[in-house]
Amino acid sequence: MRDVAIIGVGLTRFGERWEHGMRELMAEAGIHALEDAGITSKDVEVVYGSTMASGRFIGQEHVAALLSDQLGFKNIPAVRIENACASGGSALRQGYLAVGSGMHDIVVVGGVEKMTDVTTGEATTALGGAGDQEWELAQGITFPGLYALMAKRHMHDYGTTEEQLAAVSVKNHLNAVNNEYAQFRKKISIQDVMNSKMVAEPLKVFDCSPISDGAAVAVLAPLEIARKYNDTPIQILASSQASDTLGLAEREKLTEIKATQIAAADAYKRARMTPKDIGIVEVHDCFTIAEVMAMEDLGFYEKGKAAKAIADGETALGSKLSVNTSGGLKGCGHPVGATGIKQAWEIVTQLRGEAGQRQVSGAEVGMAHNVGGSGATAVVHIMKRAN
Amino acid sequence: MRDVAIIGVGLTRFGERWEHGMRELMAEAGIHALEDAGITSKDVEVVYGSTMASGRFIGQEHVAALLSDQLGFKNIPAVRIENACASGGSALRQGYLAVGSGMHDIVVVGGVEKMTDVTTGEATTALGGAGDQEWELAQGITFPGLYALMAKRHMHDYGTTEEQLAAVSVKNHLNAVNNEYAQFRKKISIQDVMNSKMVAEPLKVFDCSPISDGAAVAVLAPLEIARKYNDTPIQILASSQASDTLGLAEREKLTEIKATQIAAADAYKRARMTPKDIGIVEVHDCFTIAEVMAMEDLGFYEKGKAAKAIADGETALGSKLSVNTSGGLKGCGHPVGATGIKQAWEIVTQLRGEAGQRQVSGAEVGMAHNVGGSGATAVVHIMKRAN
Repeated sequence: MRDVAIIGVGLTRFGERWEHGMRELMAEAGIHALEDAGITSKDVEVVYGSTMASGRFIGQEHVAALLSDQLGFKNIPAVRIENACASGGSALRQGYLAVGSGMHDIVVVGGVEKMTDVTTGEATTALGGAGDQEWELAQGITFPGLYALMAKRHMHDYGTTEEQLAAVSVKNHLNAVNNEYAQFRKKISIQDVMNSKMVAEPLKVFDCSPISDGAAVAVLAPLEIARKYNDTPIQILASSQASDTLGLAEREKLTEIKATQIAAADAYKRARMTPKDIGIVEVHDCFTIAEVMAMEDLGFYEKGKAAKAIADGETALGSKLSVNTSGGLKGCGHPVGATGIKQAWEIVTQLRGEAGQRQVSGAEVGMAHNVGGSGATAVVHIMKRAN
Repeated sequence: MRDVAIIGVGLTRFGERWEHGMRELMAEAGIHALEDAGITSKDVEVVYGSTMASGRFIGQEHVAALLSDQLGFKNIPAVRIENACASGGSALRQGYLAVGSGMHDIVVVGGVEKMTDVTTGEATTALGGAGDQEWELAQGITFPGLYALMAKRHMHDYGTTEEQLAAVSVKNHLNAVNNEYAQFRKKISIQDVMNSKMVAEPLKVFDCSPISDGAAVAVLAPLEIARKYNDTPIQILASSQASDTLGLAEREKLTEIKATQIAAADAYKRARMTPKDIGIVEVHDCFTIAEVMAMEDLGFYEKGKAAKAIADGETALGSKLSVNTSGGLKGCGHPVGATGIKQAWEIVTQLRGEAGQRQVSGAEVGMAHNVGGSGATAVVHIMKRAN
């Protein structure tokens, strides 16, 4: 495998983008990314596109070919990747492999989701397709209900409290205030979270990431030619992925995401690093409990210790390990097919030193962690600014 | 790139499989394929799964992880590929690249679609997601209507007749009679097609591939170790893909699929072959006109000449070029996410000499041609029995 770098990134503002359809969102993020990389559409050899449930949200499948057309790529191979909420991370990994294997030089990876054309109820049902439809959802549980089960068990086993979960949301909303692309740019309090409506006990509205529209695009190239295009290429040191059962009932434990543990172990090994080497990380906080479990499964905390540490401010912006500086899924928004690529956008932006008021000083190595469903897919990327 | 071989294939019977859900279909085809390859689930390093619209058909996204779990693969990377009706061919190509690049040895590629849990109207609407939802389908055209436009223009420009289109269906139904996995094993006549109900003029019910349930799985390995598992590995000589606009209105011509032409040209070049070298081909006959256009775009006939040639029997089973020996999408059935891999199954079965009563004698080189939507994706594979 040869070394791979991200040479360009582009993002749309996340949120309720009533005025734009999916193709406009794709184009908006894509044009940013191509300009950022200093390339034209003619340079691109293959494109991976990711959406989770565009068929159910807007009736559109076959979105990679549409992305290719919208960005003016002429007749190149276009491949849609769908791995639920880990679609973006999975697409990024396919792009990484396409470049790393030597098959292609310039590869574009783009994720998008247009979720606000349906009702919240319809969106929640569509998102249930990330879990086991036949053995879970069809039996009556909702997708938030799956994470509520995990939260309940985590509280039972480790004494995690609802206030500690709320602290995840408070931190991520605070980070989002300084992200101009974020859906929610408003500071909230623990009490705001505690007072918000119950969705699936113990998870309240402010424990849950929102329904969002948005797109994110990244441009990859071999590191050896990356500087031809860009002065600050960000090297992907590791790109690792693992899977697990769709259904929670078939897992060994409810309080961990085994796919995250396996993907992280593989990533640390490939990058020749340990959790101590990571300065910033975007973790998959689809629900507050998900960030707590991620911090443990990624090796930053022992199992059962993360919730208190987060509540104590150990992962706030500018601490030794800054977590979800973009605002995470909770604060920045969660257009599901775009999220994994937006995470990479944030890490690239931080490692370049271009994160403005939310810049973490001295960030050297970053990680992006993207989860599909209730943990049936996990993708972990480790990146650093190329020397 | 190192040489890649298919060492195992498995298929379910295609049709209205009321008694089985998607996970059972996956398992049925998958177990066949693993047994055929002489491997166990522990040998598999990565799995690509393909469905087109499982979200809309049965509410289930995230199907590659489900496939991985159903086949007992433990926590390996699982990636769903969706490129409309070319999802299967696109997944096969990703598997080919994963092995060919040297990243992985044993890779499983599985396609499935469970289409009969919804009404025919709902299924047709879901399939419309293969075209341009915003600029075509939302304006009122149906998916068969898109191919009807192409048929009308082909008839106008080249004098193609409805009876010639009907001959495609008659040939493919005849081939399906001897395929025990086929949905329709009944000989039909030109008059049967002409008398069937109009769907979108000039296409009648018997010009259209059916709504089907089914799954197909293939196992890939480097050619250099393929004989460790299998006495008759089938080498993939070329795996090529191209894209085009989703919308017909943006294409240069209605009578050709440019993505097919580009993918075919690339495949011939990589395989160092011409159309004359191909003895059997599975082409994407989602509608009868699609087979006519494919025979021209793949270089077997000049533009405008294929329809008469097919009607004259030039592509019947056992002729110099046997086309859609499996029965094609029309006769064998078209569970959209499985079709591209089923095409490879047929070519492998023929090249091994295991096709029973539909065996083409002396078949040396085969091609599989898979199209997404009205031509926004095309994938072409060329295969031969390894020496």
